[in-house]
Amino acid sequence: MRGKMKAVVKKTAGPGAELLTVDIPAIGPRDVLVRVLATSICGTDHHIHIWNDWARQRIKPPIIMGHEFCGEVVETGDRVTSIKVGDMVSAETHIVCGRCPLCLTGKGHVCHNTRILGVDTNGTFAEYVAIPETNAWLNHRDTPLELASIQEPLGNAVHTILSAEIAGRTVAITGCGAIGLMAIGVAKAAGAAAVYATEINPYRSQLALKMGADRVFNPAREDVVRAILEETEGYGVDVVAEMSGHSNAVQQAFDIVKPGGTVSLLGLPAKPVELDLSEKLIFKGVTVKGITGREMYDTWFRVKGMLVSGNLNIEPVITHKFSLEEYAKGMELMDTGNCGKVILYPNM
Amino acid sequence: MRGKMKAVVKKTAGPGAELLTVDIPAIGPRDVLVRVLATSICGTDHHIHIWNDWARQRIKPPIIMGHEFCGEVVETGDRVTSIKVGDMVSAETHIVCGRCPLCLTGKGHVCHNTRILGVDTNGTFAEYVAIPETNAWLNHRDTPLELASIQEPLGNAVHTILSAEIAGRTVAITGCGAIGLMAIGVAKAAGAAAVYATEINPYRSQLALKMGADRVFNPAREDVVRAILEETEGYGVDVVAEMSGHSNAVQQAFDIVKPGGTVSLLGLPAKPVELDLSEKLIFKGVTVKGITGREMYDTWFRVKGMLVSGNLNIEPVITHKFSLEEYAKGMELMDTGNCGKVILYPNM
Amino acid sequence: MRGKMKAVVKKTAGPGAELLTVDIPAIGPRDVLVRVLATSICGTDHHIHIWNDWARQRIKPPIIMGHEFCGEVVETGDRVTSIKVGDMVSAETHIVCGRCPLCLTGKGHVCHNTRILGVDTNGTFAEYVAIPETNAWLNHRDTPLELASIQEPLGNAVHTILSAEIAGRTVAITGCGAIGLMAIGVAKAAGAAAVYATEINPYRSQLALKMGADRVFNPAREDVVRAILEETEGYGVDVVAEMSGHSNAVQQAFDIVKPGGTVSLLGLPAKPVELDLSEKLIFKGVTVKGITGREMYDTWFRVKGMLVSGNLNIEPVITHKFSLEEYAKGMELMDTGNCGKVILYPNM
Amino acid sequence: MRGKMKAVVKKTAGPGAELLTVDIPAIGPRDVLVRVLATSICGTDHHIHIWNDWARQRIKPPIIMGHEFCGEVVETGDRVTSIKVGDMVSAETHIVCGRCPLCLTGKGHVCHNTRILGVDTNGTFAEYVAIPETNAWLNHRDTPLELASIQEPLGNAVHTILSAEIAGRTVAITGCGAIGLMAIGVAKAAGAAAVYATEINPYRSQLALKMGADRVFNPAREDVVRAILEETEGYGVDVVAEMSGHSNAVQQAFDIVKPGGTVSLLGLPAKPVELDLSEKLIFKGVTVKGITGREMYDTWFRVKGMLVSGNLNIEPVITHKFSLEEYAKGMELMDTGNCGKVILYPNM
Repeated sequence: MRGKMKAVVKKTAGPGAELLTVDIPAIGPRDVLVRVLATSICGTDHHIHIWNDWARQRIKPPIIMGHEFCGEVVETGDRVTSIKVGDMVSAETHIVCGRCPLCLTGKGHVCHNTRILGVDTNGTFAEYVAIPETNAWLNHRDTPLELASIQEPLGNAVHTILSAEIAGRTVAITGCGAIGLMAIGVAKAAGAAAVYATEINPYRSQLALKMGADRVFNPAREDVVRAILEETEGYGVDVVAEMSGHSNAVQQAFDIVKPGGTVSLLGLPAKPVELDLSEKLIFKGVTVKGITGREMYDTWFRVKGMLVSGNLNIEPVITHKFSLEEYAKGMELMDTGNCGKVILYPNM
Repeated sequence: MRGKMKAVVKKTAGPGAELLTVDIPAIGPRDVLVRVLATSICGTDHHIHIWNDWARQRIKPPIIMGHEFCGEVVETGDRVTSIKVGDMVSAETHIVCGRCPLCLTGKGHVCHNTRILGVDTNGTFAEYVAIPETNAWLNHRDTPLELASIQEPLGNAVHTILSAEIAGRTVAITGCGAIGLMAIGVAKAAGAAAVYATEINPYRSQLALKMGADRVFNPAREDVVRAILEETEGYGVDVVAEMSGHSNAVQQAFDIVKPGGTVSLLGLPAKPVELDLSEKLIFKGVTVKGITGREMYDTWFRVKGMLVSGNLNIEPVITHKFSLEEYAKGMELMDTGNCGKVILYPNM
Repeated sequence: MRGKMKAVVKKTAGPGAELLTVDIPAIGPRDVLVRVLATSICGTDHHIHIWNDWARQRIKPPIIMGHEFCGEVVETGDRVTSIKVGDMVSAETHIVCGRCPLCLTGKGHVCHNTRILGVDTNGTFAEYVAIPETNAWLNHRDTPLELASIQEPLGNAVHTILSAEIAGRTVAITGCGAIGLMAIGVAKAAGAAAVYATEINPYRSQLALKMGADRVFNPAREDVVRAILEETEGYGVDVVAEMSGHSNAVQQAFDIVKPGGTVSLLGLPAKPVELDLSEKLIFKGVTVKGITGREMYDTWFRVKGMLVSGNLNIEPVITHKFSLEEYAKGMELMDTGNCGKVILYPNM
Repeated sequence: MRGKMKAVVKKTAGPGAELLTVDIPAIGPRDVLVRVLATSICGTDHHIHIWNDWARQRIKPPIIMGHEFCGEVVETGDRVTSIKVGDMVSAETHIVCGRCPLCLTGKGHVCHNTRILGVDTNGTFAEYVAIPETNAWLNHRDTPLELASIQEPLGNAVHTILSAEIAGRTVAITGCGAIGLMAIGVAKAAGAAAVYATEINPYRSQLALKMGADRVFNPAREDVVRAILEETEGYGVDVVAEMSGHSNAVQQAFDIVKPGGTVSLLGLPAKPVELDLSEKLIFKGVTVKGITGREMYDTWFRVKGMLVSGNLNIEPVITHKFSLEEYAKGMELMDTGNCGKVILYPNM
């Protein structure tokens, strides 16, 4: 398919982005071309937009931004067998090599040769996107577009939360950004005995309660460690999911976890974090899990399963909807933190 | 504490039981005496009552029947430290040795020297019961008596269901007796993508739907294997919990489990079962778990956690309530199968 | 590469096979052509040769037999990227679809669409064989040919044994065919406290001792259940690996496993087996694992790791070596059971 | 049993200790009195002897030092049932409450109320020691005294190493103190593909090779991270066991672990450690396990199993033997690091 399309392009190394008219991407024999129907803004997109340290080192402009999305397949490569024109798809955004020892042993999410859609390749803030067949995830036709689009970050939440036993266990979630909020919902849906959340931003604290948190504590105003220990008879929670990347929150995670419990780390600290390993991790016999991406593709099946379980309502997380042309409004909301997920519609 | 009390006693080797006046049990230095406030009828009690083959070999009359219960502690032995008079307790009903290699490695539920309350020792169908301190489980004072009483069989359901990954997975439960019904609720509360149940008795099928089963199939009238394979795109379910003990159901469990899935067996077949191991278990790479009792005491903590999660409503399972004197009515209901849990009140 | 080659062909539906001159196989764009340097006889090949019930149902003649092998790559398809001419390779013999839910979740060994080399496609009892790039396993150039050839069945042994905790645990292996013998070596190499084997054939019993079994019991002459319980203070072993497929041995596996232990089943019973599930599996809290194939490709990495560990000497299992022309001698040995692994050399 | 005995006593808050004549300890109804036949010096004893920061905060003099030992039971309390006079025993040195939620769920090694023999109670650098029956571990009569004595720290090594999959996997051990050295032996005995060790002290490097390390690197002289990555084709090792407590080594552990691998931490850093969590733990999908004590009592059974496996020779670690009177010589050796395990004999 040839022609032109609108796309949000990081054109030069520096803050901001531009809405440009560019060529519709060409596809290879094992790729599919998808008309983007909804695409959502990830924290990573925001980092690229404001051009933070990480973006400066990783991004090679020009590049079309964005990676969370859903859309309709409009063209398929010659060797594509499992996807056809008209299918509704989203994408696993880790494009992996399939042949390294990690890929060969079911650990594709930590593949040595990963490229990421919208980070290392042209992304989804556009009318069309080309993705490998292997990365296409087939959606039910009646899945709402917004929900289909945010399956990728929901996958992060599911990967984080379900990497520990949750049913009947107590859980703390530090940081209520979009993935933290989804993690609250996932933990409740999986039968957590109680979910305690920590968050400074009042807008997000309210969303945390809507997502089912039993209590939300504000680390700026109260001693969250003492509060959570009090809620748990002094033992701490069975599972902590650290979703903020703030060093204080990471340290608190080890204060509030029960001896023998699990701390899952998804939030990315910008700098090294000092940890009292002897008292907080070793003597307590704690297990720590570094969480990145989604298990390929088991996490996608579990996301699908959680969505049909009837236990999980993810809608409160979707707070804003804009046309693609209004992407800058979305980025401004991300600056303030007064949002959950922001959805952009490129074909409206 | 001395005196007399009412008790349902299996007095002689044969069907039936008698309501007698007997001595209140004496306690040792590490025991507690409990005034029974509610006690529920287990399938095992029914087997003892009708005097089936298993009962004939295991039970040495005279014995006071019953083991599921809750009550108030009225006396404690000299060396009891963690329980006091006035506490509301239920009991783990496996009285284990604590010193065999199984007990010493966290597998007390399969202790070589287990004695069972109401089976090997005097039980709870009485105004008072004596139990070891180690077996007393402390209840919150405001837990409804009926719920407190059925924590023990609920523990069987929790042990069975939560021995596999449930959140986002598909589950089948074969047999909707009281524990099967509770297992449906537990699976839904733990975020199962779908729960399919099989049951012949229409009364129990209705209860299965009330407990949240997505579909209930009747093996007497339909091809449940085909039906469940159709529901799962031909792959079968991730997890099967076999709760009936019927050989047909055990065989079907291996037909309806997905390759790589798990079959947990709790129901006790009366006779050996023929299994096509090559096609149904080995080539499919299935894992089978034999489930007995409750993990001591991790299952009890998970039961407590599930009950406070807000996801689990166990009340539909409690279908009948009688005074202890009316125990025979309860046994008659058990004959018909037209009941969930039957509760008896010895002190009303 | 065009031309003719020698191959052992099952030409018609019936016992036996023929050494024929056939075309060297053509390769597709993602295949590699391998000159076979060593190929070993599997029990499956023997079943096809004698034309047993299973073979009758599964095999569609004409087909070149054989699947265990190693060789040198002589030609690669256009799209092959990870293998080059001159590489020494063996093959994972399950050719899987890569797109079904099982393949997509790391369970390729139970793929719904598996085809097996030498069973469903032309195999390795030939001078050349074509295999998909994805199934080629790169060997070190200095790996002995015989060892490289038997990595596939060694993978079965590794998959079976290492699916349970072995270090410091007691293990029983029922049946000392080639894979059972390798399993003994793997269990010892992985630090088993003791390995007890059962075997009727004296030739194989001797090999079992050479592979490191602490004791070998003969079920035809002694009460192996009593003997193993005596060795384990009455508790049974932590892990049983059933490698024979005999119904008696399967039943004994559940008699000799410790409560809370694991029974891994690899041997394929020809008929359904009657099991006393209540007493032997459920009350004992046993876990059963159906084992098929090798985890793709984690098992291959573990095989490689075990071979370089210095703990595992697999050579006693390799008992006979013939040229390809002498394949019938190998089959006759398989008839008697008086052999471990028989190696054939097609290019000598 | 009444009378006097020799004992090494930390009499006052400060460096050193004294050999004194004190009362033989009295026992309670559930204790046993043991005549100490061999007792070994732990790093913890050395910390108490030199009176470091940790000792200053934890130890309340006067106290008899020591906790690793074996001996013969000479007296048993009235309620002791599983141990009798004449038995050869060692001790699990964590004296736990048995009733907290951690003890009740198989996590006694992180009990909230743990007291430690020779740290919080009178220890084993004496002719006699009193221990609870529950903590006594029965030895075979023919176990060498030295081996029986060091089962406790060997348990630390076993707990650390066997908390990850080892058979066929690559392992790195940072720090070759006594427990690090034992960990090398355990990893080799459990079938590790390769064991790489790091150590500065040449005496201990030599012991590391004797224990079976494939390579020993000196972090003071070479780039151990580069060296280990080169040995592992750039991927790193599957499992790192950090046994030194040095912050550099802890940081290196995360450099040399393969993505998706495991880092087990046993060494106790004296101060908080800075970790680059994003790059080294989260993006790599690493699992970290804090290891303390021994699983009660599963680790003891595995120690026993490893010792009888025939794969593990722990003798090179036992480098020095003294009478109890010469305990100061042992402490001087600990100052230099030029020793493995030092054994003291109080009854010679």
